[in-house]
Amino acid sequence: MTEITQIRMSDYPGNRPAREVWQTTHDPLPSLREGQVAARVDWVSIDPGMTGWISNKRNYMPPVRPGGVMRAFGVGEIIESRSENLAVGDWITGFLGMRSHGVFNDRDVRTIDVDLASPELFLSGLGMTGYTAYFGMMDIGQPQAGETVIVSAAAGAVGSIAAQLAKNAGARVIGIAGGAEKCSYLTEVLKLDAAIDYKSENVAARLDELAPAYIDLYYDNVGGDILDAALERMKYRGRIVVCGAISQYGKTNKQEGPSNYLQIVTQSLKVQGFTMRDYMHRVPEAVEVLAKELQDGSLICRQHILEGLANFPAGFEMLLTGGNQGKLLIRIDH
Amino acid sequence: MTEITQIRMSDYPGNRPAREVWQTTHDPLPSLREGQVAARVDWVSIDPGMTGWISNKRNYMPPVRPGGVMRAFGVGEIIESRSENLAVGDWITGFLGMRSHGVFNDRDVRTIDVDLASPELFLSGLGMTGYTAYFGMMDIGQPQAGETVIVSAAAGAVGSIAAQLAKNAGARVIGIAGGAEKCSYLTEVLKLDAAIDYKSENVAARLDELAPAYIDLYYDNVGGDILDAALERMKYRGRIVVCGAISQYGKTNKQEGPSNYLQIVTQSLKVQGFTMRDYMHRVPEAVEVLAKELQDGSLICRQHILEGLANFPAGFEMLLTGGNQGKLLIRIDH
Repeated sequence: MTEITQIRMSDYPGNRPAREVWQTTHDPLPSLREGQVAARVDWVSIDPGMTGWISNKRNYMPPVRPGGVMRAFGVGEIIESRSENLAVGDWITGFLGMRSHGVFNDRDVRTIDVDLASPELFLSGLGMTGYTAYFGMMDIGQPQAGETVIVSAAAGAVGSIAAQLAKNAGARVIGIAGGAEKCSYLTEVLKLDAAIDYKSENVAARLDELAPAYIDLYYDNVGGDILDAALERMKYRGRIVVCGAISQYGKTNKQEGPSNYLQIVTQSLKVQGFTMRDYMHRVPEAVEVLAKELQDGSLICRQHILEGLANFPAGFEMLLTGGNQGKLLIRIDH
Repeated sequence: MTEITQIRMSDYPGNRPAREVWQTTHDPLPSLREGQVAARVDWVSIDPGMTGWISNKRNYMPPVRPGGVMRAFGVGEIIESRSENLAVGDWITGFLGMRSHGVFNDRDVRTIDVDLASPELFLSGLGMTGYTAYFGMMDIGQPQAGETVIVSAAAGAVGSIAAQLAKNAGARVIGIAGGAEKCSYLTEVLKLDAAIDYKSENVAARLDELAPAYIDLYYDNVGGDILDAALERMKYRGRIVVCGAISQYGKTNKQEGPSNYLQIVTQSLKVQGFTMRDYMHRVPEAVEVLAKELQDGSLICRQHILEGLANFPAGFEMLLTGGNQGKLLIRIDH
């Protein structure tokens, strides 16, 4: 019998640090019912959305159940099947969970083509991360050639792809990130037009320099002071895509909204939020575009790989403080 | 020579109460240059937008110049003309200013048809107030039959018209206002489906009761805690029209943004701000609809009339505290 390793959430962390609720258990792999498959999980991703999944506030999906296995996107290979649709050796992705192996209903996972790309890429550029960047930037943001586009957390998993998509659409793209390494990555490797280091520079003053005619489109992943600085400098009828607000996720107190939000009125701004549930029916469109750009080199995707499930608690904290460089993944060595 | 009375702004109030900057002066009526008219101003309106006009922060139009006459919408009759386009006896509206008489360039004002409606109505239901309600609700909000629509400051000048337009479109409309008189006006006179008295009731709890399936469309005039309560209860893909945030206008400290703004992401909300500069080219459309609904009684417009320019400072404070009942106008007796 296969013993499996799983990370569980003992309770909603609420105002506690999340590290206090993670528990590792070793359990037998359940036996399969009709329509189910068992898979070995090789890669799992650590995502900002997790902060919502471990809170019992109203959200876009039900939270993780206290005592349950932590929800996570993963990729793995089927090792046993009682499904007519999935065979041993097929590679799958979906909410496989923070675990080494698992049993899944066949309708809850989908297959991936590992000849198209390496499996872990289906958790970054060719996964939800890539789709989120693609639909947020291209369907909602719709950057136009010559426009000035600002992306926050631009060295992050979603931000880096969103920024490159805007650049590929002909926009002038300025990325905001924390630290000299990330900023030089943005300008030297991703070829963005400029980068602002929010840890060592005054974001507002730098935006004044770099976007004197104001901002057409702001793709926001961070909220907080950077959102306020952008709001004050939006062009008349500018657009803001709200993808997330990582500056607010770790907060144990009341979250802070943007104090400059009245610019929404005075500059006739359109502010649009989204999650991938709005776009699941359009995933193939994103895969087609992203796969093509990844293959021809016009899209670069950096991954930050941790080894083993034991690194999940530290990795989750790293994500909230911006310590990672690229998409944060855990490789599970079997 | 006609002596005219004018209210001037001595300086930007900044963190001071605005009453400290108003000054009344008596000046000779300037002589006309070619293309100008002189008018007797009979009515001026007091508008929330004034809070922006007396601040030197970036806004949708330049602020009033320190020492200059306070900007205000007005209606009046031409008493002298050196314009080919405007004649003595014509009635005009525009930024006539907080004054008893004035000299205007003919291209800065437009004529009104006082046979269609009483002159002061061109400052309320048939003026910018009505247009703001019309375009905000009907062009941006687009209420659908059966939807649940919430309007804040629903007994106010803009809110009461916006609420009635949504009701006339077949929506279920809940108005939020301060005090029993205003709330009974909303349900008894305007025939809204329900009213919430934010001064004596818990808005969040009442919204839970009245909109258990959440809110399709929120037309916001107030910001602050009421915006937060609405954000928490928006339907997936709900819409928020941001018309203003009167709860924040009087603030001498940093304004507070909505702490629940991450609902914009998790519920895929669309938040759209606007001012009338977006819609000046479509004013005739609004006039047509509003005039028809005012005439057939399906739109009711309440006015709160103060006598004389000396009441402007008190009227401006009344507006910020919600002391007025309907559109706040000053009648200037000549």
